[in-house]
Amino acid sequence: MALSEYFPIYDKLTKQEQELLCNHATKRTVPAGTLLHNGDATCMGILVIREGQLRAFLTSDEGREITLYRLFARDICLFSASCVMNSIQFEITITAEKETEFWIIPPYIYKNLTDNSLAFSNYTNQIMATRFTDIMWLMEQIQWKSFDKRLAHFLLEECAIEGTSVLKITHEKIAAHLGSAREVVTRMLKYFQAEGMVQLTRGAIEIVNEEKLEQLADA
Amino acid sequence: MALSEYFPIYDKLTKQEQELLCNHATKRTVPAGTLLHNGDATCMGILVIREGQLRAFLTSDEGREITLYRLFARDICLFSASCVMNSIQFEITITAEKETEFWIIPPYIYKNLTDNSLAFSNYTNQIMATRFTDIMWLMEQIQWKSFDKRLAHFLLEECAIEGTSVLKITHEKIAAHLGSAREVVTRMLKYFQAEGMVQLTRGAIEIVNEEKLEQLADA
Repeated sequence: MALSEYFPIYDKLTKQEQELLCNHATKRTVPAGTLLHNGDATCMGILVIREGQLRAFLTSDEGREITLYRLFARDICLFSASCVMNSIQFEITITAEKETEFWIIPPYIYKNLTDNSLAFSNYTNQIMATRFTDIMWLMEQIQWKSFDKRLAHFLLEECAIEGTSVLKITHEKIAAHLGSAREVVTRMLKYFQAEGMVQLTRGAIEIVNEEKLEQLADA
Repeated sequence: MALSEYFPIYDKLTKQEQELLCNHATKRTVPAGTLLHNGDATCMGILVIREGQLRAFLTSDEGREITLYRLFARDICLFSASCVMNSIQFEITITAEKETEFWIIPPYIYKNLTDNSLAFSNYTNQIMATRFTDIMWLMEQIQWKSFDKRLAHFLLEECAIEGTSVLKITHEKIAAHLGSAREVVTRMLKYFQAEGMVQLTRGAIEIVNEEKLEQLADA
């Protein structure tokens, strides 16, 4: 599989631009846990994901975290090129949650294409609008949704991503996804267990009543 | 003053594009309190602000509010054209906080320019990145900052915008800006008063120790 098949607007680029992209894009595979972007300290460029899973998150001064969005196969990671995007004045962290294979389009090639290709500029715009939508969804969740609903939604989403009803994830990690504290997660999971929605075992959470959990998440 | 002087990339457009812009842009003045954009129900297009003040905010199903950002003279209001931005899948509300004078660039002209002008597309990108930065700042505030710090910051910001140390604003309105409840605002303001930072009178809040308030906001 070539980059051309993973880059949606490849056909809209000129022959010259296509060559520029292909000649400078490099392919890389990183193991789960790899730090790919950390504010302006790193500047890899745009990542086109072939396979795997990335996590974009915010970190507080005290080291607390909250997940902003996830990226999967065929997604484009834009903010790893934030060093060449003057108006982006915030710092996010991006790590690989699973072994991930991607093409890197270096910052100067991204800049060159943005400055010269209308199709590329419009596509960048579209990606940013999609991320903006992700963030606004999260903002509404944080602002208006109670924690039980957010946790229920998170568990269901994780099951969908992993294709299982038994999640191997620590309470600590769930807290980092939701921007909460481990104790709060543990307390709520115990409540979910008492209500017959989940079964807690060492290092795992089994969804035993998905329907009830969905009702809670959508309420 | 003409639109050309308020639209930063006017000189980067072709003669034809400049004409398109000027022939279709209309000028309008609205009084304070005017609803300008409400999700996809309205689709005015892009607004170029000549003078005044707009407020973009989120509303919950229960009618609670939180301010996302403000726009002032020479700012561009992009999301009032969200009907022609396919990847924008969230709904915000925009109102005039003060009497505001602006040019409206209709949605089809915005679309036309985005589809054909690289300069315009890149500029749209830049505006969206700036709003994205605003939202990420807010996200960090909501997520990691305690309410006293957020309230202190809000009071100082209002004083800067209004050029006064006596704010004529209700506790209800402050709550709507900060996504909080009136009672929470009132309780915190009384604490600020007890600490000698503000003086509360009927319908007004006077900042009496700006330095102390700044220390709290920055802590």
